[in-house]
Amino acid sequence: MSNTVSAAVFLATTLASSVVLAQQPAQQQTGLWSVYEQSIKGAKHIDLTHAFAPVQPVWPGFGHAEFKATAAGADIPGYVKKGDEYTYAKHGFVATSYTLTTDQYGTQLDPPAHWDEYGATISDLPPTYAVRPLVVIPIHEKVAADPNYHLSVQDVRDWESRNGRIPEGAVVMVRSDWYKGWNDPARFATKPHPGVSLDALKFLHLERKILFHGHEPLDTDTTPTLEGESWLLHNHFTQAEGVANLDKVPEAGALVSIGFAKPLGGTGGYARYVAIAPADWPHGVTVAEAPGAPLPKQSAPLRRDEKGVMRPQAGAK
Amino acid sequence: MSNTVSAAVFLATTLASSVVLAQQPAQQQTGLWSVYEQSIKGAKHIDLTHAFAPVQPVWPGFGHAEFKATAAGADIPGYVKKGDEYTYAKHGFVATSYTLTTDQYGTQLDPPAHWDEYGATISDLPPTYAVRPLVVIPIHEKVAADPNYHLSVQDVRDWESRNGRIPEGAVVMVRSDWYKGWNDPARFATKPHPGVSLDALKFLHLERKILFHGHEPLDTDTTPTLEGESWLLHNHFTQAEGVANLDKVPEAGALVSIGFAKPLGGTGGYARYVAIAPADWPHGVTVAEAPGAPLPKQSAPLRRDEKGVMRPQAGAK
Repeated sequence: MSNTVSAAVFLATTLASSVVLAQQPAQQQTGLWSVYEQSIKGAKHIDLTHAFAPVQPVWPGFGHAEFKATAAGADIPGYVKKGDEYTYAKHGFVATSYTLTTDQYGTQLDPPAHWDEYGATISDLPPTYAVRPLVVIPIHEKVAADPNYHLSVQDVRDWESRNGRIPEGAVVMVRSDWYKGWNDPARFATKPHPGVSLDALKFLHLERKILFHGHEPLDTDTTPTLEGESWLLHNHFTQAEGVANLDKVPEAGALVSIGFAKPLGGTGGYARYVAIAPADWPHGVTVAEAPGAPLPKQSAPLRRDEKGVMRPQAGAK
Repeated sequence: MSNTVSAAVFLATTLASSVVLAQQPAQQQTGLWSVYEQSIKGAKHIDLTHAFAPVQPVWPGFGHAEFKATAAGADIPGYVKKGDEYTYAKHGFVATSYTLTTDQYGTQLDPPAHWDEYGATISDLPPTYAVRPLVVIPIHEKVAADPNYHLSVQDVRDWESRNGRIPEGAVVMVRSDWYKGWNDPARFATKPHPGVSLDALKFLHLERKILFHGHEPLDTDTTPTLEGESWLLHNHFTQAEGVANLDKVPEAGALVSIGFAKPLGGTGGYARYVAIAPADWPHGVTVAEAPGAPLPKQSAPLRRDEKGVMRPQAGAK
């Protein structure tokens, strides 16, 4: 063979073996594991969730939560009496009891049943609420100039002119940077807050067929009727609220892992969202950096603080 | 060129374009979206979670949960009085209030803090608890012959002889089919139940460096000291409990999406796990089959049942 032919054959052979590897996802049982090894393991993971606490931002018409030690629900002779709190020292474990006066608390996933009596509940959501493309549309610069700024259709189109068409089935989060004041009660009580216009919601759902959108505040918009949330939930769409850390995620190219507690017939969702960004993204951690097993030890023994939250406490006995 | 050479060049050219596509994940911002389009969108999604209910299997030393309508936490003049329950008819929405006497309830993710005062809490888990390879090791046939059967190191080695080495960082679920009796209180109270031996846990964590294992019952084993759970949590590993539907998942080749509520300092995890299996797997749904937006309507209006759970109720006013 000539050198040219030889090179072509060599190339074909080399590429063929690469392609066998690359094609595994669609054709072999080990394909999704190749996806993990090649694309997810080394990706940068960013948690988009506020941990919920006994006292935190909540709509004034709702109330706060109570966290306390779990007490025995029954006598177990020789071990525990009904009503005794479980402790590391006496029982070898602890558990936590929650009184959650509302399911509209913290980082959420609102199902249609929250507003619509024919709507799906949180336990009705299909398993395809799992891993989706994540689009992040920034409005934080406009919000800095106008705290009542709402995402517009033009903002969506501008995003598309930079990044291409929004993928069908994507999760679209709106970055306002509002989340940065989450722990500031004075800022939290300040109105207005950034929002998402009804036109933008209709465009995203009806024209782009997204899975759901998410925003950082606890309401979708600042209209008196909450017209955006009303339209979404009465049209059998869901939405994410109270999302964090969108300033640490690329506006295109990441995935989102969608997690939530699954109470039967639940009308709200205590959610956890994780962005999975490309390996060269500057924020977040890879599996090698944060393998999760074994986990780091606390700096001091865990004890309940005055609000019932388990926290490391120096000098604890 | 000869036909052979021509074919080789054609092959090289064709393969080269395939490889460019396949290599996107590692090299371009849109790469993870290609992964979604090519490998996840058409994959079969299977929910591995029991929806948790007011009454369900729980360790007798704990108690059940209470679900009820959320009532107003404060007067809002002209709208609601403190203590009034929110209703679709009067307020345009409902919300749910939970009294959860324990965080060891339903399908769970146990963090080390449940047993170890220096252990990580649920809100300490890194964002890499998101998407991992899912290994399912079947012991259901042995359990059918011996209801106290515990996963052995040999079972793990047998799985590896069929499927290759367990990927580092994987989630390893143990299929016993115990979950099929979840709603049968008589069966639930029957001891013994299937388990996972301490040797197998040590092998999986120390030799194979998995993220965590999961099982269908609410305890890891039937030893008096719960030696497996003790070893795991005191060594700063996590575990999944109360997992469902493992009979509908391939023993190799799927991914798992790991979701859970994130209370600050939580000592247990109300979790939701979804398996993502190859497109040719017979169980589960694709995104096209269950897009999730818009969601199906209820067959009848939602009302609370006698236990406080929102359920469709024929003839509701």
